[in-house]
Amino acid sequence: MIPRYSREKMASIWSPENRFRIWFEIEAHACDAQAELGVIPASAARTIRERGNIPYTAERIARIDEIEAVVKHDVIAFLTELAEHIGEDARFVHQGMTSSDVLDTCLAVQMVQAADILLEDLDALLEALKERAFEHRMTVTVGRSHGIHAEPVTLGLKFAGFYAEFRRARERLLAARQDIGTCAISGAVGTFANIDPFVEAWVADKMGLRVEPLSTQVIPRDRHAYYFAVLGVIASSIERAATEVRHMQRTEVGEAEEAFSKGQKGSSAMPHKRNPVLTENLTGLARMVRAYAFPAMENVALWHERDISHSSVERMIGPDATVTLDFALARLTTVMKNLAVNTKNVERNLNMTGGMVFSQRVLLALTQAGVSREDAYRLVQRNAMEVFENGGTLLERLKGDAEVRAFLDDAALESLFDLNVHTRNVDVIFERVFAE
Amino acid sequence: MIPRYSREKMASIWSPENRFRIWFEIEAHACDAQAELGVIPASAARTIRERGNIPYTAERIARIDEIEAVVKHDVIAFLTELAEHIGEDARFVHQGMTSSDVLDTCLAVQMVQAADILLEDLDALLEALKERAFEHRMTVTVGRSHGIHAEPVTLGLKFAGFYAEFRRARERLLAARQDIGTCAISGAVGTFANIDPFVEAWVADKMGLRVEPLSTQVIPRDRHAYYFAVLGVIASSIERAATEVRHMQRTEVGEAEEAFSKGQKGSSAMPHKRNPVLTENLTGLARMVRAYAFPAMENVALWHERDISHSSVERMIGPDATVTLDFALARLTTVMKNLAVNTKNVERNLNMTGGMVFSQRVLLALTQAGVSREDAYRLVQRNAMEVFENGGTLLERLKGDAEVRAFLDDAALESLFDLNVHTRNVDVIFERVFAE
Amino acid sequence: MIPRYSREKMASIWSPENRFRIWFEIEAHACDAQAELGVIPASAARTIRERGNIPYTAERIARIDEIEAVVKHDVIAFLTELAEHIGEDARFVHQGMTSSDVLDTCLAVQMVQAADILLEDLDALLEALKERAFEHRMTVTVGRSHGIHAEPVTLGLKFAGFYAEFRRARERLLAARQDIGTCAISGAVGTFANIDPFVEAWVADKMGLRVEPLSTQVIPRDRHAYYFAVLGVIASSIERAATEVRHMQRTEVGEAEEAFSKGQKGSSAMPHKRNPVLTENLTGLARMVRAYAFPAMENVALWHERDISHSSVERMIGPDATVTLDFALARLTTVMKNLAVNTKNVERNLNMTGGMVFSQRVLLALTQAGVSREDAYRLVQRNAMEVFENGGTLLERLKGDAEVRAFLDDAALESLFDLNVHTRNVDVIFERVFAE
Amino acid sequence: MIPRYSREKMASIWSPENRFRIWFEIEAHACDAQAELGVIPASAARTIRERGNIPYTAERIARIDEIEAVVKHDVIAFLTELAEHIGEDARFVHQGMTSSDVLDTCLAVQMVQAADILLEDLDALLEALKERAFEHRMTVTVGRSHGIHAEPVTLGLKFAGFYAEFRRARERLLAARQDIGTCAISGAVGTFANIDPFVEAWVADKMGLRVEPLSTQVIPRDRHAYYFAVLGVIASSIERAATEVRHMQRTEVGEAEEAFSKGQKGSSAMPHKRNPVLTENLTGLARMVRAYAFPAMENVALWHERDISHSSVERMIGPDATVTLDFALARLTTVMKNLAVNTKNVERNLNMTGGMVFSQRVLLALTQAGVSREDAYRLVQRNAMEVFENGGTLLERLKGDAEVRAFLDDAALESLFDLNVHTRNVDVIFERVFAE
Repeated sequence: MIPRYSREKMASIWSPENRFRIWFEIEAHACDAQAELGVIPASAARTIRERGNIPYTAERIARIDEIEAVVKHDVIAFLTELAEHIGEDARFVHQGMTSSDVLDTCLAVQMVQAADILLEDLDALLEALKERAFEHRMTVTVGRSHGIHAEPVTLGLKFAGFYAEFRRARERLLAARQDIGTCAISGAVGTFANIDPFVEAWVADKMGLRVEPLSTQVIPRDRHAYYFAVLGVIASSIERAATEVRHMQRTEVGEAEEAFSKGQKGSSAMPHKRNPVLTENLTGLARMVRAYAFPAMENVALWHERDISHSSVERMIGPDATVTLDFALARLTTVMKNLAVNTKNVERNLNMTGGMVFSQRVLLALTQAGVSREDAYRLVQRNAMEVFENGGTLLERLKGDAEVRAFLDDAALESLFDLNVHTRNVDVIFERVFAE
Repeated sequence: MIPRYSREKMASIWSPENRFRIWFEIEAHACDAQAELGVIPASAARTIRERGNIPYTAERIARIDEIEAVVKHDVIAFLTELAEHIGEDARFVHQGMTSSDVLDTCLAVQMVQAADILLEDLDALLEALKERAFEHRMTVTVGRSHGIHAEPVTLGLKFAGFYAEFRRARERLLAARQDIGTCAISGAVGTFANIDPFVEAWVADKMGLRVEPLSTQVIPRDRHAYYFAVLGVIASSIERAATEVRHMQRTEVGEAEEAFSKGQKGSSAMPHKRNPVLTENLTGLARMVRAYAFPAMENVALWHERDISHSSVERMIGPDATVTLDFALARLTTVMKNLAVNTKNVERNLNMTGGMVFSQRVLLALTQAGVSREDAYRLVQRNAMEVFENGGTLLERLKGDAEVRAFLDDAALESLFDLNVHTRNVDVIFERVFAE
Repeated sequence: MIPRYSREKMASIWSPENRFRIWFEIEAHACDAQAELGVIPASAARTIRERGNIPYTAERIARIDEIEAVVKHDVIAFLTELAEHIGEDARFVHQGMTSSDVLDTCLAVQMVQAADILLEDLDALLEALKERAFEHRMTVTVGRSHGIHAEPVTLGLKFAGFYAEFRRARERLLAARQDIGTCAISGAVGTFANIDPFVEAWVADKMGLRVEPLSTQVIPRDRHAYYFAVLGVIASSIERAATEVRHMQRTEVGEAEEAFSKGQKGSSAMPHKRNPVLTENLTGLARMVRAYAFPAMENVALWHERDISHSSVERMIGPDATVTLDFALARLTTVMKNLAVNTKNVERNLNMTGGMVFSQRVLLALTQAGVSREDAYRLVQRNAMEVFENGGTLLERLKGDAEVRAFLDDAALESLFDLNVHTRNVDVIFERVFAE
Repeated sequence: MIPRYSREKMASIWSPENRFRIWFEIEAHACDAQAELGVIPASAARTIRERGNIPYTAERIARIDEIEAVVKHDVIAFLTELAEHIGEDARFVHQGMTSSDVLDTCLAVQMVQAADILLEDLDALLEALKERAFEHRMTVTVGRSHGIHAEPVTLGLKFAGFYAEFRRARERLLAARQDIGTCAISGAVGTFANIDPFVEAWVADKMGLRVEPLSTQVIPRDRHAYYFAVLGVIASSIERAATEVRHMQRTEVGEAEEAFSKGQKGSSAMPHKRNPVLTENLTGLARMVRAYAFPAMENVALWHERDISHSSVERMIGPDATVTLDFALARLTTVMKNLAVNTKNVERNLNMTGGMVFSQRVLLALTQAGVSREDAYRLVQRNAMEVFENGGTLLERLKGDAEVRAFLDDAALESLFDLNVHTRNVDVIFERVFAE
């Protein structure tokens, strides 16, 4: 997470202000619950909430840091500073709880908050993709496998494919958000020895979380691993979309390009260049988000009821993965919204192989006319290779091939070179992708 | 995937027999659908099914390999060999389809089959864990954070924790199974240019899959990435359970050990050794399954409508990840079922710190008796350190500490050293974990 | 490691035959050393070598497997079977040694053997690259950054760049080979309690290894991690070369293509297609080899003097990483050797942007003629954009731009559009790359 | 890279001040070289150096940021701001160069600077380890394989083992430092079309780098991948050392513990706890550094002469990997220096298995007395299991075993239970490890 690839809203989730604020809320809610139970005086709970409910200013944060430098324990530092505002009743704060009750429940809240932003990001991206998909629903372009021209598709199908993929991303992220959203207030080793499970249920409810069924001081880390793995898969989908744009923009293809803002310079040395730098950047960012899934998985195998090896990892990848992915999704949305399609080049490329994109139709027609599959293949390949090496169009070549003519006459051949065949089911696919 | 860490049932999913069998089924169903549509003669579809419906023997597989060595294309080799059995009607097979229609739909079937075995594995593991959890529901043992004694828990809670974690694993795997189970019969670049979507729907239905809403010759690889990522998370949970056993078995702890079979030798040099080799092995296997998630994520960004870079990866990790995870889950189940608990050592360890595991209760009691949190902490830590360095029990030390005695008398102190406090909510947790 | 992507020579290193053969050699050399020391009778050492020096046939291997199924310990099984051939003197075998002495020293031998094959592979690849580099030393082609035409380079420089990269790969692999090649015969926990260090030195010398300075039952795993990390970096370089070919072969570029063998079929549906399937395959294989580096790094942190978690990992990645990389290097060599360059398309592409590849030279000339860098940039970009959007050549546009003409006349402008400028230092670079 | 896990010196390498300072030096040296060649006026080179040689203050950096926000190109922004100080002669800056000449050469300098700090870190760690190794050269402790007591080792050997491992780390880092230290000033696509190779040689010399033999606008990324892979291996060695401490500190073992600073609190709930939090933290940090190697390897396969996907990755992992590893090495040094060894517990543990750590010696003695290996194993295991299950010492049990007594009398048996046997080769090992 570096400023260059950060957006304020997501970054602020990981700020000390937000963290301490959530910590305070957890503690205050826990006090309310303890007061309900009669464990602590109701007046104390009120005092705690009233006096503690003040913003975490830079000064307060500095004070907490100062204490932590001595006690080397972040939650104790937080509680000590809080006590300076609350006074004597501060001794009722955190009763029966352990640091991880606060830390892990807070992390769950932050990861839910982050997921909510990412879901918004995905919604914006989906909207942009849908719009471009319908805009180019019938813009015929060449489909490529192995980077080689295959058969016609439409640009709209490309966008629709990304749409479908990010819809799946959305579903998986929703599942991960649901999975991560648990609250643990279960004490030192999760046995509720010194705290009633009622407190946990109360705090969970107030914080919009579910109760963690079984915590062992910590919330089990398979939840976090799953969450970061899902982010890694989403990042990989970003890479796919980015790679498509990079290909479309390359000089020889020229079918689309990232919008070029006024004043922007492509190269310090070569003034004519318009480079797909945004999508190349997205490719790199995807690598990072993917990499963060690895330590998240290694974090699962904590020793016994817990060790703290996961903590440094999460202090890093919590912000790094979510902030980077948020930035990347937003950037991809911008790219997709503003992608300049060059329809002239789209058409040029479609036609550049002399109609070879229709070869499979010829193959099928020959088969249906009684030629064996093997022979049909040989006949088409022979003419295709001729076009490939010596130019001309496949249609002409076929018309001139006596062995082919034995089965298909001019009219029959011409009918096979028809773009409409390739677009006739676009609506069926759109219906599937955009239904509901 | 090596024989040492393979089980027959899972391995056979990835055998040529199973693969060619699935390919044939896809082709035969597609022919039925084409016959329904009148694209090919109904008699041809019947012939294809009747003559083709023969086992893929070693001879047939050798013949396919032989053909592939020449044509360097696995599906064409398969079709060519199939034609040798079917005769002239073979020309109606595969019409309008592309190789990936067969390959990707087959892979989906295999991954669903693999998921089904893994789900069975998880069920067996869950059953074993549940049984051990209830068996040791109230076997009190020391809970540890940072490897340091903290407060009492029960062995049953440890098993219950693994149960809860593998229940989540099961849910995630179900989601991944659902996600991966799609069928694509959409032709060269997914446009149904030469094949009616009816065929895809028909085959999907027969093969127990859903229709892939938008394929681009291939089924999008985010589905596969998600699947392998979920396997990686499950492997990480295996590592956690394995690590717990490894810790429990170490000489100084001795709370449990893997069953030692008759005739087994622990060490070629040291005959007395009984080593946790199964769980150490599981730790290594977990590393492998986790590693496979990464190339799966890298596979997502195929170029344009597809490239074939994913294929070699999947030929490896398809078997490697599923076979290894199947083996690991089964091994973990065996370990858990047969884990020999040494209750004598469990009790010895619980008591080895002179009652320090009750220190938090003292802290709370002092706070409730009016001592500030800071002072209470200091008082308890002072006596705890005394026990830690010079032995004795915490209870005795506290009784001899005048500053403590000012707030808590003998009876009050004694009431704090009570194991029942730590087990009183075990049933609440079991209720949460095992409720359906 | 699957047969499809394996070559016999490398695969055989990991065969049981080779492994047991190496084990026997280690044991036999150790016996010789022990006899030298007088620890065991010289006659016993002779008997062991004479009777044990027989091939590990399928029968012997089956017998070892049979024993291992009972004792569950591979080295004990090996020794037991060996004893069946040696007779009474077998009790002198393995004295004072521990299994890992045999296993780890054997693994070191295998990894050195594997490195030697990989070094040969690299030599063959380097030779092929060098030949192609000199062949196309002056074949001018367009250089591209961001997939966008930049300035001219030569095809030879591309090959030379790969050459330089794989030369570095060679050096790193040599370092890793040197690093991994150690012998440990130090007993149960590496203290030589029951064996003289003389034995280790003797065996090391016979096996072509160095003595491991400090082993703790095992050879430390940072050596192995480093080795597999180096393989991962080499695989990444393979991916770079493969990606270049994939780009050159794409339809719009058409500058080169993988050789297409007789009878090979590109697509079951589209007979005209010639796809870069070998380099796409290499891209996938690179993903795998890279992935194996991670469990190798996780293997480093064994517990105390050793645990066996690394073993299952190495049983997999030992063969998988080396066999796959060997296959990939050989395949890349084939690709590079046979790569068909289409010089017509190379030239077509070079000229397709109307001379914009010379724009930087114009920029420099303007600056040297007194225009500020900022103004020069603006002037060139203005004309470049004109060409980009409306065609024509940059030279014509510049000649028609009065502001430019104020500084550069026709002759001056024309002199800037000269390919020789771009090739004048090719020899300097070749000298650097191919020196020695 | 977050402040909590950063040290100033390493972090400052990645500050804008240091980066811009290096950029300026590269540009100024290049101007000197160009002046030497007569390409630009000598007076201009002087002016550039004189006027540009001013600190990069916060104001200057803000100005650069401001310009970059418009031109969206960092090097152009840098040059524009520099021109504001230099005046008219600024047009001679950067002539014939491309941004990457500056960026990549700068990154090489930074990575060399970072390596130098890491080498210092390693030296400090090695010194600490050496000191502890000699301090505990003969402190006998139990060696453990699989977490199970095996045979005696010395604490000094443990430290010596880490020493040897970090010595290897040092060698590998030196190799990576050497590998990464190249300078590229080769122009837009690396052909020196507009700049003389003399400039590159000049700048390389001044910056303490070697000339990059072949750059393609960028320095090839296999160099960077190798560097980060080496950091990942070093991190894995940190994890191993950290894991050893974590094990030694666990309650049941208690052989050593991290120093506990005054005022530090172990747990907010359990005041008696002294947790190995530093080494747990190191475990997590190791996961991060290891993870960064992955995107570094993915960065290698840039498209054609370059794309910019590597840039975002390096902006993150450049600082993240080096700063985190620097912090971790320093922390490990502190841990090792201050590790409090509890010799009482070391001795207690050594003796806790009733002499079973000597079992292999008995096995050998029986064998040498004529018992077959199989029988000897059975005899020792029988008695070891007896001790394991019913207590007592192995020596007593053996003395009472008639079958054993037939071969070894009391004196013979007693002579086998001798610690000196296990330490007799410690000096040999120390000699190997610490010899220079």
